[in-house]
Amino acid sequence: MPTTQSTKPASGTRDFLPDEIRRREHVIGIVRSVYERHGFEPLETPAFENIETLLGKYGEEGNKLIFKILKRGEHEHTGEADLALRYDLTVPLARVVAQYQNELPRFFKRYQIQPVWRADRPARGRFREFYQCDVDVIGTTAPTVEAEILSAVSDVLLRLGFQDFSVRLNHRLVLSGLLNAAGVWASQQDAALVALDKLDKIGIEGVANEFRARGIDPVATERCLASFHQPENERPEETLLRLERMLPHDSSVVNLREIVELSEDTPAAGRVRIDLSLARGLSYYTGAIMEVSVAQLAGSLGGGGRYDGLVGMFLGRDIPACGFSLGLERVIVVMTERNMFPDAVARAGIDVLVTIWNHETRDESLKLAQELRKIGLRVDVYPEADKLAKQFKYASARNAPFVAILGDDERARGEVGLKDLRSGEQVSVRRGELGATIRSRLQQVDGGR
Amino acid sequence: MPTTQSTKPASGTRDFLPDEIRRREHVIGIVRSVYERHGFEPLETPAFENIETLLGKYGEEGNKLIFKILKRGEHEHTGEADLALRYDLTVPLARVVAQYQNELPRFFKRYQIQPVWRADRPARGRFREFYQCDVDVIGTTAPTVEAEILSAVSDVLLRLGFQDFSVRLNHRLVLSGLLNAAGVWASQQDAALVALDKLDKIGIEGVANEFRARGIDPVATERCLASFHQPENERPEETLLRLERMLPHDSSVVNLREIVELSEDTPAAGRVRIDLSLARGLSYYTGAIMEVSVAQLAGSLGGGGRYDGLVGMFLGRDIPACGFSLGLERVIVVMTERNMFPDAVARAGIDVLVTIWNHETRDESLKLAQELRKIGLRVDVYPEADKLAKQFKYASARNAPFVAILGDDERARGEVGLKDLRSGEQVSVRRGELGATIRSRLQQVDGGR
Repeated sequence: MPTTQSTKPASGTRDFLPDEIRRREHVIGIVRSVYERHGFEPLETPAFENIETLLGKYGEEGNKLIFKILKRGEHEHTGEADLALRYDLTVPLARVVAQYQNELPRFFKRYQIQPVWRADRPARGRFREFYQCDVDVIGTTAPTVEAEILSAVSDVLLRLGFQDFSVRLNHRLVLSGLLNAAGVWASQQDAALVALDKLDKIGIEGVANEFRARGIDPVATERCLASFHQPENERPEETLLRLERMLPHDSSVVNLREIVELSEDTPAAGRVRIDLSLARGLSYYTGAIMEVSVAQLAGSLGGGGRYDGLVGMFLGRDIPACGFSLGLERVIVVMTERNMFPDAVARAGIDVLVTIWNHETRDESLKLAQELRKIGLRVDVYPEADKLAKQFKYASARNAPFVAILGDDERARGEVGLKDLRSGEQVSVRRGELGATIRSRLQQVDGGR
Repeated sequence: MPTTQSTKPASGTRDFLPDEIRRREHVIGIVRSVYERHGFEPLETPAFENIETLLGKYGEEGNKLIFKILKRGEHEHTGEADLALRYDLTVPLARVVAQYQNELPRFFKRYQIQPVWRADRPARGRFREFYQCDVDVIGTTAPTVEAEILSAVSDVLLRLGFQDFSVRLNHRLVLSGLLNAAGVWASQQDAALVALDKLDKIGIEGVANEFRARGIDPVATERCLASFHQPENERPEETLLRLERMLPHDSSVVNLREIVELSEDTPAAGRVRIDLSLARGLSYYTGAIMEVSVAQLAGSLGGGGRYDGLVGMFLGRDIPACGFSLGLERVIVVMTERNMFPDAVARAGIDVLVTIWNHETRDESLKLAQELRKIGLRVDVYPEADKLAKQFKYASARNAPFVAILGDDERARGEVGLKDLRSGEQVSVRRGELGATIRSRLQQVDGGR
């Protein structure tokens, strides 16, 4: 076999070594637990779908980014594809809702944490395999759903340790209502929204220039910019009062108010602001849209909204749905940069290494390991009799906080030598108390975080 | 969009609805926890690899079963593939060991629980997407490794509730030693082992017939069958004594004895028997081989062994390795048939449904849900004001054990109505005590398992 073969993972994908997995599992564990407390149930779907399930669902650009799987056997030479890797978790959800409609409860609340694959050009922070953490409620248009979703997402961020996040909220029909009221033609509204979405970056003048370039009437432009202009950190109540003046008796404004007010009784309380420039990928949203962001981070940690037309696509009828997708990789990047992982997560994968004193006492070491494992400790055993220095070196390489030594003298006394690799201190402990001693010393460390 | 489009998952793959995921997560959680207690650390690799990483590693038959991914963009029309889905977890491990050799500890103990994909013809119990739970130790030939792996696998099965499992152990070099000693030519040994592997099914006579068909010398056949013949339930010590007579001073018999004796100080104690007819896919095993099986189940729950030539393939030198692969789907099938899942796993995904009394008190219901979630309960809120009968029907559909009702009278008294859907009983509980009441009643139920 040639030794020159590349051993890197495929372009745009990553190997996750133990430390990284511990960080990912920490986040996923909290996401899962909070979503379950909010009454969501887990769903998993296969990595690949029949190709026709995916094609045509993501627009022309999306189609190009779908990984297609070659037919097998005698058909392989045709170069045709019959399967494709999952591009997101929403189309599989739509398929599942259609397939199992008679088995699912009237309101289907599911979360799904799985990788998706997109043949994007790899770049810093952009991968071809990445995880989505999706939460969706199917089957009702009630605004409690938006409030519950914002509750769950806010609870996740609080439990992960984010103090400075905010929820940006807007409404697809408020956007079109404001554009209509300002006199922007329906045919110009998509372009207008693309420009408004950049308000943060290019400012009022920039948006005005883009409107002009799109041939939007100057009076409409002026009216539009006036209605979209928001004082910094405007409280939602103020925004709502303005909207109620601009779009009196508009049901989408009523809907926004309900969401804002219901959110006040959830962990999202005090986090929500209405951001009229928030547009998101407008193609399939039909109601409220939302994004979560933290200070000093361009872009968002996740977003979502109501999309009443998409989930029913396989059934040929509308099924109301609202969901949110949290970006696992972004959350982890920010938490790593900010040193937000508890010490116990960062700490190595073993609590103690049991050394082997000599060839004849290997069984004694295995027995000791077994005793320590019984009380839940993570224990490695050095595999063979070897110089103690080498065994300690291996313990250090594995970042083990403790090493247990079953020397002849210690064994004769019914004791075990316990070395703390962080302090260098070594003590003798009665064998029956070794586990409890290690456990209490570990708690001192983890408790100090 | 045509409504006639199939909404089934692709052939050979499955959707996992919530109840199934809870069962899978229960098993995976125990596997993970036991492997970590044994000092193994988690590894995850991408779903697809560069195609040359996989091709040629699984023999001709294996090659045909690899799912290949079409090149993208301008190259798509060529029908060529540049990526392929992971076929097992061992080749990716070998690649990882080569890629990160300077970052990994001297002995690399990793577990990996991820799906693999094989384009097998789908059949009952055979899927194109299935999970492997692999555990491997890289970097040493010491027999403590085999003992530790059998310890981990036995501990997993015990904690899952299997009482009747046994570990079948054999050794690749004992097999060839016995065949050599009987006078079976080297060129006939593979065929002889295929026949011996069927001893359980076709009996001594059947094996003798197959030997004859392969042209194996009658005297060698007789000697061979005598040495491979084992009394039912032969204790390992007896088998070892016989082997030591047949193959005196043979290092592979010494190795087997060490593994058996070291295992006696682990959870595998009393489970191990030496099965001389155990052959497994012999192509890459170089030492001990093992399988775990339970009574009344054809086939095994998993298997493994030592393979010192495979992991180093990307480095062009041998690297000692020993591993075991537990079949998640088989474990789950047996546990489901035997009703081995704890009630709490089978129980629905929510503990309580909070109803909505009327449109004006939606916020009160959200607030109550929030209080109950804070103490860790899994709480759903009915999304809108609706007939109470409908809300109860939904609670039943979700298998919720409890429903909380915030009626006007109850709210006026600072109480909540709590209905137990299993007994039909309804009581009024002080609001501040509701969570504790639900929790203690749930424990009564789960404690009864």
